[in-house]
Amino acid sequence: MDIAERYKKVRQRTEQICAPLQTEDYVVQPVVDVSPPKWHIGHTTWFFETFILKPYFTAYQEYNPDYNYVFNSYYETVGNRVIRTDRGNLSRPTVIEIKQYRKYVDDAMENFLCREISDNIKELMVLGFNHEEQHQELLLTDIKYILGHNPLFPAYSTDYISLKVESSASEFIKQPEGVYEVGFNGEGFCFDNELNRHKVYLNAFEISPNLVTNQEYLEFINSGAYHDFRHWHAAGWDWVNTNKIESPLYWHLIDGEWHNYTFNGLQQLHLKDPVCHISYYEAYAYASWKGLRLPTEYEWEVTANQFNWGKSWEWTESAYLPYPGFTKAPGAIGEYNGKFMVGQKVLRGASEATSPGHSRITYRNFFQPELRWQFTGIRLAK
Amino acid sequence: MDIAERYKKVRQRTEQICAPLQTEDYVVQPVVDVSPPKWHIGHTTWFFETFILKPYFTAYQEYNPDYNYVFNSYYETVGNRVIRTDRGNLSRPTVIEIKQYRKYVDDAMENFLCREISDNIKELMVLGFNHEEQHQELLLTDIKYILGHNPLFPAYSTDYISLKVESSASEFIKQPEGVYEVGFNGEGFCFDNELNRHKVYLNAFEISPNLVTNQEYLEFINSGAYHDFRHWHAAGWDWVNTNKIESPLYWHLIDGEWHNYTFNGLQQLHLKDPVCHISYYEAYAYASWKGLRLPTEYEWEVTANQFNWGKSWEWTESAYLPYPGFTKAPGAIGEYNGKFMVGQKVLRGASEATSPGHSRITYRNFFQPELRWQFTGIRLAK
Amino acid sequence: MDIAERYKKVRQRTEQICAPLQTEDYVVQPVVDVSPPKWHIGHTTWFFETFILKPYFTAYQEYNPDYNYVFNSYYETVGNRVIRTDRGNLSRPTVIEIKQYRKYVDDAMENFLCREISDNIKELMVLGFNHEEQHQELLLTDIKYILGHNPLFPAYSTDYISLKVESSASEFIKQPEGVYEVGFNGEGFCFDNELNRHKVYLNAFEISPNLVTNQEYLEFINSGAYHDFRHWHAAGWDWVNTNKIESPLYWHLIDGEWHNYTFNGLQQLHLKDPVCHISYYEAYAYASWKGLRLPTEYEWEVTANQFNWGKSWEWTESAYLPYPGFTKAPGAIGEYNGKFMVGQKVLRGASEATSPGHSRITYRNFFQPELRWQFTGIRLAK
Amino acid sequence: MDIAERYKKVRQRTEQICAPLQTEDYVVQPVVDVSPPKWHIGHTTWFFETFILKPYFTAYQEYNPDYNYVFNSYYETVGNRVIRTDRGNLSRPTVIEIKQYRKYVDDAMENFLCREISDNIKELMVLGFNHEEQHQELLLTDIKYILGHNPLFPAYSTDYISLKVESSASEFIKQPEGVYEVGFNGEGFCFDNELNRHKVYLNAFEISPNLVTNQEYLEFINSGAYHDFRHWHAAGWDWVNTNKIESPLYWHLIDGEWHNYTFNGLQQLHLKDPVCHISYYEAYAYASWKGLRLPTEYEWEVTANQFNWGKSWEWTESAYLPYPGFTKAPGAIGEYNGKFMVGQKVLRGASEATSPGHSRITYRNFFQPELRWQFTGIRLAK
Repeated sequence: MDIAERYKKVRQRTEQICAPLQTEDYVVQPVVDVSPPKWHIGHTTWFFETFILKPYFTAYQEYNPDYNYVFNSYYETVGNRVIRTDRGNLSRPTVIEIKQYRKYVDDAMENFLCREISDNIKELMVLGFNHEEQHQELLLTDIKYILGHNPLFPAYSTDYISLKVESSASEFIKQPEGVYEVGFNGEGFCFDNELNRHKVYLNAFEISPNLVTNQEYLEFINSGAYHDFRHWHAAGWDWVNTNKIESPLYWHLIDGEWHNYTFNGLQQLHLKDPVCHISYYEAYAYASWKGLRLPTEYEWEVTANQFNWGKSWEWTESAYLPYPGFTKAPGAIGEYNGKFMVGQKVLRGASEATSPGHSRITYRNFFQPELRWQFTGIRLAK
Repeated sequence: MDIAERYKKVRQRTEQICAPLQTEDYVVQPVVDVSPPKWHIGHTTWFFETFILKPYFTAYQEYNPDYNYVFNSYYETVGNRVIRTDRGNLSRPTVIEIKQYRKYVDDAMENFLCREISDNIKELMVLGFNHEEQHQELLLTDIKYILGHNPLFPAYSTDYISLKVESSASEFIKQPEGVYEVGFNGEGFCFDNELNRHKVYLNAFEISPNLVTNQEYLEFINSGAYHDFRHWHAAGWDWVNTNKIESPLYWHLIDGEWHNYTFNGLQQLHLKDPVCHISYYEAYAYASWKGLRLPTEYEWEVTANQFNWGKSWEWTESAYLPYPGFTKAPGAIGEYNGKFMVGQKVLRGASEATSPGHSRITYRNFFQPELRWQFTGIRLAK
Repeated sequence: MDIAERYKKVRQRTEQICAPLQTEDYVVQPVVDVSPPKWHIGHTTWFFETFILKPYFTAYQEYNPDYNYVFNSYYETVGNRVIRTDRGNLSRPTVIEIKQYRKYVDDAMENFLCREISDNIKELMVLGFNHEEQHQELLLTDIKYILGHNPLFPAYSTDYISLKVESSASEFIKQPEGVYEVGFNGEGFCFDNELNRHKVYLNAFEISPNLVTNQEYLEFINSGAYHDFRHWHAAGWDWVNTNKIESPLYWHLIDGEWHNYTFNGLQQLHLKDPVCHISYYEAYAYASWKGLRLPTEYEWEVTANQFNWGKSWEWTESAYLPYPGFTKAPGAIGEYNGKFMVGQKVLRGASEATSPGHSRITYRNFFQPELRWQFTGIRLAK
Repeated sequence: MDIAERYKKVRQRTEQICAPLQTEDYVVQPVVDVSPPKWHIGHTTWFFETFILKPYFTAYQEYNPDYNYVFNSYYETVGNRVIRTDRGNLSRPTVIEIKQYRKYVDDAMENFLCREISDNIKELMVLGFNHEEQHQELLLTDIKYILGHNPLFPAYSTDYISLKVESSASEFIKQPEGVYEVGFNGEGFCFDNELNRHKVYLNAFEISPNLVTNQEYLEFINSGAYHDFRHWHAAGWDWVNTNKIESPLYWHLIDGEWHNYTFNGLQQLHLKDPVCHISYYEAYAYASWKGLRLPTEYEWEVTANQFNWGKSWEWTESAYLPYPGFTKAPGAIGEYNGKFMVGQKVLRGASEATSPGHSRITYRNFFQPELRWQFTGIRLAK
C-alpha cells in the first residue's frame, strides 16, 4: 500500500471508531488518564500538521495557531499546552470545528502526498500512522471508560465480540536456559524502544499458553485474596486499601451476581473470557497466590510464537528500561518513548482495542503499575 | 399572571438563556462550583417532576427512574445522587434527551395546571418558579465561567450590556442610630431565610450610594495591596498567597493593558463599570485599604431604597445566620436554606445575571468568602 | 498586685503547668492546631522580649537573634517565622536551652520593672499577662491532646478534678425582648474585640442554667443522630462523614463501655460531667435534635450572671465579627484579634483549663466550627 | 567472633551513634521517610525480642505488650502497628524508658546466648545483626536530616570526615561483551534479594573509576540543567518543578556562595567531595547532560573490584526486581525484601553512614527514584 492510500485508511479508521458516539461523548474526561475523544481526533490531526505540513509543505497555511496550544500533548519542545487535567474542561473548539480542521489537514495532506516525498518524510509518515493507531487504541479505551462510568451504562456497540479463551493445551511451554536474542530486527517500522536487538541470558523457564480467565480470577477473589497482605507488594497493598479495590475495573456485584461492563453494555460475567482491566499489582498478587509468577518481557518474546496472543495486553515482571544502545531521536520526536523509562512496567501482546497490524512480537507497551483502564490481562510463568 | 402562564414564561426564559450555546458547552464542569448547563436544565425539570407531578398528579408516569439519581442536587431526603464533582463526567443523558425530558414534564404540567390546584400546591409552584430563577442566574454565571476559561475566549452574545456606574451623588447616606425593622413582611413570595421580620438596634452609620468601580479597584491593585498583609484577614491572606491572586477573576494583563472577559468576549477593561467577580476577602481588604468597611446586611436593607442597586451582588460584613424564629419546612423543601447557615457571608442586591423581579430588598444571597465566580461587587460603609 | 509581682506570678504558673511533663512531651506536635509545649514557653518569653525589652529597655542585649524566627507566631509585622506545621519538627533549641532563655528574659524583666514604667508600657505588660494566660490554656489543651493521643494513654496528673454538673434549677431562664447593652465597660483590662460597648435588640428568649451532660449526649449518640443528616449543617454532615465522627474527641468504646481520656488517664465515662470536646457542628446538631438551638453571644452575655459558668467553653450561634466601632491597634499588637474575624464561631465562658481570673462575662473566644481539641461544651436556648 | 560477642558489639555501635544526641533529637520526625531515633533504638530491640526471645527463650517474660504495637515496623504478620507517619507524634515511651527496655532485652539475650543455640537461631541472629546495621545507617541518615533541617544547623560531631575523591585514573574501565555471573555465592550472610547467583549477558561497556564530584555537579547546575526538560524523565521533570528543586539536598546558596550542611555543621561546599544526597532523577539527568548514562547493577557488580567504592550509595539504571529463583522465607522474615520489588531503583556500594563490614559487592540497596535523604551519589557509564 502506498503512503497516500495508507494515510487515508488510517485516518478513516479513527472516524469509524468515533461513529457510534454522541456529541457529548466527545467532550468529557472522567479521570486524568482519559482524554476526551475530541481531543484525540484533534491531536492526531495536529501531529501531521506540526511534523509534516508546517516544516515540509511550503504552500501550507496553518489552520489556527491557537490549536497548537489546545492539541499539543506532552511535547515540551513544541510550545505551551493545555495541561492534561484540563482537557475535559474545554467545550470549544466544538466537535464540528475539529472535524473541519481534520478535513482541512487531510485535504492538504492529499495535495502534499501527490508529490515525490523524501525517505525522511516517509519515515515520519509511518511514525504518524503508528502514532494514530496508538491513539485509536486509547480512543477505544477512553470511550469504554466514559460510557462504562456513566450511571446509565450505555452500550457502545451491538456487535458481540467474543473473547473466549479456547482451552488449548493447558500444559506450560518449557524453554531451556541459554543466550537468546530479543528486540526488533526485521524490515519495516518499529519504535525506538524496541532497539537495539541484543542478547540476553535466560534461565530455564515455563510459560502458560493461556491467559487467566474470569472464572480463575473469581476463585482468587472468593478466597479472600484482596484482604490478605501476603500476596501483595507493599505498594500494591496500600493501593488496594486506599482505593478499597475488591475486583477488576468494570465489575459490579448486583444482587449477588457478578456483572461486567463491556462494549455491549452491562452483562453477566462471561466466565471463559480472559480477565481484563486489572492493575499490575493485581496481576502480581494473582500469580503469587497461585505460587507462580509473571513472565519477564524476554521470556514472553522468545516464546510468543508458540501461543496465541492478542486478546489483552499482558503485564510482565519487567520494568520499562532502555535496551542496550538505546538512543532517542533529536527534537520533539525524541520525546516519544525514552522519557517514560522510569517507574513503569512492560506489557506485551495486543488487545481487542489494538488496531490490526499495529502490534508485533517485539512491541513494548508500558504503564504505571496501578493503572487498570487499559485492556490488561495475565499470563503465568514459573 | 396565573400559575400556568407564569410556569410557561419561567421555563421559556431558561431556554432563551441556553439558546446561544453549542452542544459541547452544556457538558463541561471546569470547577466544582460550576454545574454543566445540561445539568441545570435537567435539575429544574426534575424539581417539578419530584415535588409536584409525582406526589400530586395521579395520572403522571415517571419519565425515567434513573434521572432521579442524575438530577437530584443536594436533597438528601430524596435519595442518592451523582456527587457534585462528577456532574461534568456525564456525557449521557444527552442534551437532546434532556430536552425531551423537559418537554415531557412541561406537557404533563400543562395538563396538571388545567385543573383546580390547592393553595399548598400553588405555594410549591411559586417556590419552583423562584428555584428555577435562581438556576437561571447560576446558568449565566456558569456559562460565563465555561466560556471565560476557554483559551479561545468565545463570546456568549454580541449584544452590548452597559453597566456603567452613573456618577450620582457621591456623598455617603447618613442614618441615625436606633431600632429598625428588617426581614420580609409584604404579600407574595419570600424565602424562609428572610423570616421572621424582627427588630435590630443599629448604631449611626453612613453608606455609599455608589458601587466601587474598576478604576477605583485598579488603584488598590496598583498600590501593591495584594502583597500587603495588613489589609487582609489571616484566612484571606492565605487564600491570596496559596492561589497567587493578583486581580479579580476574568482580568488579564495583556501587553501591559488590563483586559476583562465579558459576555461579549475579551475586552479592554471598562473603567467606569462596577468591579465584579471579587471574593469577600478582596472586598474586605479593599474597604480596609480605604479606611472604611463593608455594611452589615441590616444597614444595607434599611437604606437600600435610597440608592440604585441591582448591578452586582454586594458582599456584606454579615455572616449568614438564621433570623429570630427561623424554622425550616418539613421534608425535602426544608433543606433549602437552613443547612447552609454556617461559614458563609451574606450578599444583598441583584446582578446583571439575576432574573427580572427575582430579587427584593429583603432577599439574602450567601456564599463562602473565597468564591468569585458569582457577579459580586463592593459598596462601602463607615 | 503590682506589675513586677504579677509578672512573676503569671510566669510561674506557666512553669507549674509544665512541671509534670517529661522532656519528650515538650517536643511533639500531633496535629497542626497543637503547638509543642516548648514552643509555648519560648513564644511567651519572646513576646516580652520583643514587645517590651527590645523597644523599651535600652540596656537589653537580645538573647539570640535566631529565636525571633523560631518563636514568632503569626505576627507578619515582626519578620519571618517557622511555619506552624513545622513546629513539631524542631528538636533544637532544647527544653533546657529554652528554660535558660526564659530565665535570661525574666532576669532582664525584673531589672526593667524596678524602674518607673509608663502607662503605655503598663498596658503592654497587662496585654502580655493576658497573652501568657491564653497560652496557659492552650498549653493544657495541647498537653491533653499529646498525652491523650499516645497509645499508652499516660495520665497528666493524679489529682482528681470533679466537674460534675450540679442539678440546679432545671427551668430555663426567661428574658423579655428589648434593647440590651453588651461589650466591656468596666475598669481594667479587656481585649479589643470586646469593644465598643453597644446596644443590641433581642427578642424574648429562654436559656438553660445547665450545661448538657455526657449522659444527655449519649442519648443523642444512641438515637443514631450521627447518621441522620437532618440534624446537621451541610458542612457539618460532610465533616462527620469525611472524618467518620461517631462521638466526642477522647471518647473510646472499649468492650461495649464508653471511656473518656481525662487528665487522670483513660476512665469510664462520668455521666454527670458536662459533655466536652465537641465541635460547633456537633453542638448545633445536638440542639437541633432536641428541637432547641444554641444561644447567641448576646443572649449569653445578658443572662450569664444568672447561671454558673466556667466549666467549658460554650459554643454560641454567633459568628465572630467586629463590634460597632471596632478598631485595631497600630503595629504588631493590632494583629491580635481583628484578622481572625471571618469563618469562626464565638465561644463564651471559660473552662477547667482557663487561668483563674482570665475570663469574664464579656470575653469572646473563637474557633473554627470543626475544632474539638479545646474544652468546648453546650448550653441550650429557645 | 562468637555470636554473643558480636551481639554486644553491634548493640554498642547503635548506642555510640546516638551518644551526641540531645533527648529532643530522639523524638522528631520532620518527614515521613525519617524515623525518630528513639523509634530506631526501640525497634531494633523489639526485633530481637520478637524473633528470638519470645519464640525460643522459654524463660523470657515480655517486657511490655504495648511495645509490640509501638515498635513494629511494617511486619503485617506480627500485628497492628503505629502508622509510619505517626512515629514523630509519640512522646512516650520516653528515651529513658526505651533504654531500660533495651537493657532488659540485652540482659535476656546475654542469658539466652550462654546456651547452645541451633543453626536456625544462629541464622536469625545474623539476620538481626544485619538488620540492626541497616538501622544504624538509617539512624545516621535520619539524624542528619533532623539536625540539617533545623534552622540553627547544629553540628552532630566535631570530627572532620574527609571524603575527597582522589584523582585516580580518570580513564573509564572497559569490559568486553559476554556472559557473566552475578549474585551472592560466598560463605557467610547475604540477603534473600542477592540470590540466586545467575548468568547475565552483558554488552560491551565502560564504567568510570571515579564518583562525580561537587565541582562537576556544580557545572551541571550552572549550565541551567535544572530548567531544561531535555535531560529529564517526564516524572523527574514533574518532580523538579513541583518541588522547585535547584540543587542537591542540604545545599544552601548564601550570599552567592554554595554551602553544604554536613555532620560538622554548615560549611562551604567542598568541591572535591563526591556529590551526595541527589535523587535518581538528578543522577539520570546529570548522566544525560554529560551524554553518558548510569551503569546497570550487573555492570557495576562485575567491575566493582576494579575501583574504589564505599563513599556513597550509587544509583544504577536497574529497577529493583527479583533474581531468577528468588523465594521469600516463610512468615514475618519473608516480608523483608520481596514486597518492595516494584517502583524502586537499585543502589550499589556503601556510604560514610554504612556500618563497617555491612556491605559487599553483591549487596543491593533500593529506594524510590525521588528520595534524597540517603547518602546517594553518581558513577557514570557508557
